[in-house]
Amino acid sequence: MSDSGRTGPWPPATLPMPDLLGSFPGPFPASPHADDIERQTAAWLDDFPLIGSPGARKALCNITGQGMALTFPTAGRDALFLSADLLLWLAAFDDTYGEAEGARDPARLTRRISECVHLLAGHDGPPRAPGVFGAALHDLLTRFAERSTPTQYLRLTAHLRDNLFGILWEAHHLGRPDHVTLDDYRAMRPHTVFVRTVMAIAGITLGYELTERQRSSAAVRELEAAVADLAGWINDLASYGKEAAADGPAPLGLPTLLMRQHACGLEEAFRLASRMCEERAAVAGLRITELTTTGGGPLSAHAQAVGSLASSYVWHIEHSRYQA
Amino acid sequence: MSDSGRTGPWPPATLPMPDLLGSFPGPFPASPHADDIERQTAAWLDDFPLIGSPGARKALCNITGQGMALTFPTAGRDALFLSADLLLWLAAFDDTYGEAEGARDPARLTRRISECVHLLAGHDGPPRAPGVFGAALHDLLTRFAERSTPTQYLRLTAHLRDNLFGILWEAHHLGRPDHVTLDDYRAMRPHTVFVRTVMAIAGITLGYELTERQRSSAAVRELEAAVADLAGWINDLASYGKEAAADGPAPLGLPTLLMRQHACGLEEAFRLASRMCEERAAVAGLRITELTTTGGGPLSAHAQAVGSLASSYVWHIEHSRYQA
Repeated sequence: MSDSGRTGPWPPATLPMPDLLGSFPGPFPASPHADDIERQTAAWLDDFPLIGSPGARKALCNITGQGMALTFPTAGRDALFLSADLLLWLAAFDDTYGEAEGARDPARLTRRISECVHLLAGHDGPPRAPGVFGAALHDLLTRFAERSTPTQYLRLTAHLRDNLFGILWEAHHLGRPDHVTLDDYRAMRPHTVFVRTVMAIAGITLGYELTERQRSSAAVRELEAAVADLAGWINDLASYGKEAAADGPAPLGLPTLLMRQHACGLEEAFRLASRMCEERAAVAGLRITELTTTGGGPLSAHAQAVGSLASSYVWHIEHSRYQA
Repeated sequence: MSDSGRTGPWPPATLPMPDLLGSFPGPFPASPHADDIERQTAAWLDDFPLIGSPGARKALCNITGQGMALTFPTAGRDALFLSADLLLWLAAFDDTYGEAEGARDPARLTRRISECVHLLAGHDGPPRAPGVFGAALHDLLTRFAERSTPTQYLRLTAHLRDNLFGILWEAHHLGRPDHVTLDDYRAMRPHTVFVRTVMAIAGITLGYELTERQRSSAAVRELEAAVADLAGWINDLASYGKEAAADGPAPLGLPTLLMRQHACGLEEAFRLASRMCEERAAVAGLRITELTTTGGGPLSAHAQAVGSLASSYVWHIEHSRYQA
């Protein structure tokens, strides 16, 4: 997207944003361990120095610690530490090897990912000295295996593969969003924002497991799909300003794709996107209420967990809005 | 690899090949349904026209039908048809979108794979009209879900993700094998030859399931790792002539990597590779004997299945050798 013809600050501070507080009214409960998570995650990075810059490291530990405290407000400390370390690993991998760096040399990114795929598959292989991301992933997988049932672990490692593929898919299209259809984008976006992975670790973190029948029920599938959309789209809206400010092509995100699809301007795209977010939030909110009140057992636990997870994203966009 | 200085036919017909009949003595039993599989697979391609060329289609149905009859000689017809359809799908996907075509436009390949990842993850998503490969994959997954336990299905879909990633990894490196270390190659090769996927469908096809304890035993892991290596390396040796005859860089395979690693010529690389194959075959043979005779139940069934699977690869290279 070209800068030509722009007047005033870009993007305009008055862009329409979704009102999600109707479906997700605050205040959002937070774990009392938030600061502990932040400290523990920083200590984990001493063992596995995934991030070079002290400033970036501090910021990521802060966001991850406070975010995880909102995501799983009732979880135990060790489970929170583990979940936070995993999310931090994903974010650091994306920052280090994905995005602009991945777009520059996608073949190199596939080699980085191949080391992770080898670990996720759990195969014996040639003796190899893993890089720091491989060593950290090995640590995470060992700790998750100790806490998970076999199916929980298989689901988690499947989602992590999809996250890595999503990072690779994104790297191939950052410079050419015109090759991406809105349907393609909707299918891939949950993987690049890691939201399905957080849903998968909810059961491990909070100690419940859905039956296959519960998992495949219309209510659970609709709830998860709505929150998966919502998380990615909210993130697109909140990060648009930062991404559009950088030189280069239009951000690969919902506003850009809606502008193309509807041949409209940025403000109208934000209005459309906001409505889409509000609709998905409403679907999620109804399903959460339904499952929490009538589901019982693991279904209620899952609905509450997915609700907290969604709230942490809502908190995030509200936070971003007030920062603007 | 340059052609310069070559005299006579290339590659030389006298290249050393592994002697695997010590560990895998024939004759290899075959299913009586071999010709039925071939016919049924051709009929499946009428519903899902994955391959345009009638000649390529006939050849692939023949190889897949006869190969599957050797892989699972005692399996029932419907299970054989399903396994054959899946292997045919993988080979056709690789031929159509991977290899040279994938190397030309890896971003396009990631978009093709993204449709498959969406189906493998089983997520609800936007309404979309899948392409013929997507529709065929959906058919396969529905049929496998009916025959599988939840863990069998999760393992299968994990392996299929790894196959698709392997195809993508290969597409990024076909033109530059110099960027691939021998360790990287050893880790990725089982995924590009689909051998772990065949191991995963053995239990679904033959109706057994290992416990987690059995699956993670040293004997099973060593057997599977040995056959995973063997299948890829044998394929590299058997296909070298065809791949080296094409214009372009050296084939991305074991001989090329061994020539670089040992600064040796092609004949010496084939000698080294043959020894590596024989060693892995010997490891596999010993573990198969051990597990078949003392394992009992699912362990014996699995060892026999992995043995048949390995035999089908051995048959394949012997077949190739006699064709030379």
